[in-house]
Amino acid sequence: MATTTMSMLETYPKSINLDRAKLAAAIDALISCSEACTACADACLSEDMVADLTKCIRTNLDCADVCGAAARVLSRHTGYDANLSRSLLEACITACRTCADECAQHADMHEHCRICASACRACGQACRELLAAMN
Amino acid sequence: MATTTMSMLETYPKSINLDRAKLAAAIDALISCSEACTACADACLSEDMVADLTKCIRTNLDCADVCGAAARVLSRHTGYDANLSRSLLEACITACRTCADECAQHADMHEHCRICASACRACGQACRELLAAMN
Amino acid sequence: MATTTMSMLETYPKSINLDRAKLAAAIDALISCSEACTACADACLSEDMVADLTKCIRTNLDCADVCGAAARVLSRHTGYDANLSRSLLEACITACRTCADECAQHADMHEHCRICASACRACGQACRELLAAMN
Amino acid sequence: MATTTMSMLETYPKSINLDRAKLAAAIDALISCSEACTACADACLSEDMVADLTKCIRTNLDCADVCGAAARVLSRHTGYDANLSRSLLEACITACRTCADECAQHADMHEHCRICASACRACGQACRELLAAMN
Repeated sequence: MATTTMSMLETYPKSINLDRAKLAAAIDALISCSEACTACADACLSEDMVADLTKCIRTNLDCADVCGAAARVLSRHTGYDANLSRSLLEACITACRTCADECAQHADMHEHCRICASACRACGQACRELLAAMN
Repeated sequence: MATTTMSMLETYPKSINLDRAKLAAAIDALISCSEACTACADACLSEDMVADLTKCIRTNLDCADVCGAAARVLSRHTGYDANLSRSLLEACITACRTCADECAQHADMHEHCRICASACRACGQACRELLAAMN
Repeated sequence: MATTTMSMLETYPKSINLDRAKLAAAIDALISCSEACTACADACLSEDMVADLTKCIRTNLDCADVCGAAARVLSRHTGYDANLSRSLLEACITACRTCADECAQHADMHEHCRICASACRACGQACRELLAAMN
Repeated sequence: MATTTMSMLETYPKSINLDRAKLAAAIDALISCSEACTACADACLSEDMVADLTKCIRTNLDCADVCGAAARVLSRHTGYDANLSRSLLEACITACRTCADECAQHADMHEHCRICASACRACGQACRELLAAMN
């Protein structure tokens, strides 16, 4: 999929006080992670051993919600205030680490957990890089 | 509106390691704040002086997204992990303070900003009380 | 919980071409239903018999997403276009009927499913009444 | 951005009664459209002529919410019920057409509106193709 994230950043009419490449990478990673987590929660729900995957499902749902909200906030630049972006990136880093660790425990048995853990790790890394560039 | 938030907490089949009254108050305040912010963004958009309210609209949209995501996460108790709840409550407190301060600047001219500022302050307070009870 | 839904409708600066009482009732019912469904999905996830509740969880998650999105759309009045409101109300009526029927099958065993079914039926009814008033 | 949408569909443990290529295309188009609309709303908000773009902003916000919710619902396959998917695809088609038409009116002056109109048209098309394959 080719998202329009970078094109939209480039056509924003005022200045953006952030590294655009890192910002676009974080937004795209958040969107991709949110989608992977939504799908992984549902795939876990359809596994015969669903009773062993309830914590994984919950963690997936949380990570999808937090990363989805963060992608929206980071896509806005009007009246920018760094405090909320920082605080939300911290929450995403926590959600992604928790979800990656949980999914990784089932990665040998469930390919969807392996893919989702990888999307969470990539997202956490992109959030950390953006956060580092903001300070 | 009578939400079912407390009834749902009371019928959750396992234990909840949080003060249920404070948890229900926070969830309801987050939901109410998210709705007020969504409506305030749209009301600002319809004001003749919209050009002076663009930061307010952006702040409203952010606060609606963050509080909406937090209400969902706090409504889940399966495989509870305090770290994400804490981190997300911090983000909500930041979003609510920023939005309340911004809306308060327009409260004399726009009644919707006055109501929204009040919903944000109430939500920030409910989040701080839950966070204090978690530590 | 006292939402500010009606107060926000009353302070919207331009005219609203809809019955405000029915509109506020629908928005509040959608918000309450979305919250009940999010909590019911999690409560089902923590039941020992979760393997028998996977369809219920999925239906809950869908209903929460659709009703949450509809509450936001109906809270906006700027540049109003009836077509999307109608189409989205139809989707909510479908989601609420499906979720109410599914939860009702477990209402004898799980009190959270009984409460959630009731919230879904109330929401479906509020959506039908608003839709009827729009035509 | 490489989403994991198709990989997640391929690792879902049960059968999916839909054309997987069309389903993945629709999910990715919905996600991309939702992101473009969120960014376009904010870019419009920062234009000097924001007062002439209020309907565009509102339409963008609606389209972002509806397409975001639909992407989540279509990413779930457990206990599949075609009725909600159909109803939601219809709502997305309406939202995308309205938003594309509105953005197209500003495409000559605002490059972000041109890109967003294009994302909305592509999404509407992907939704129509999936809907046609479902009937």
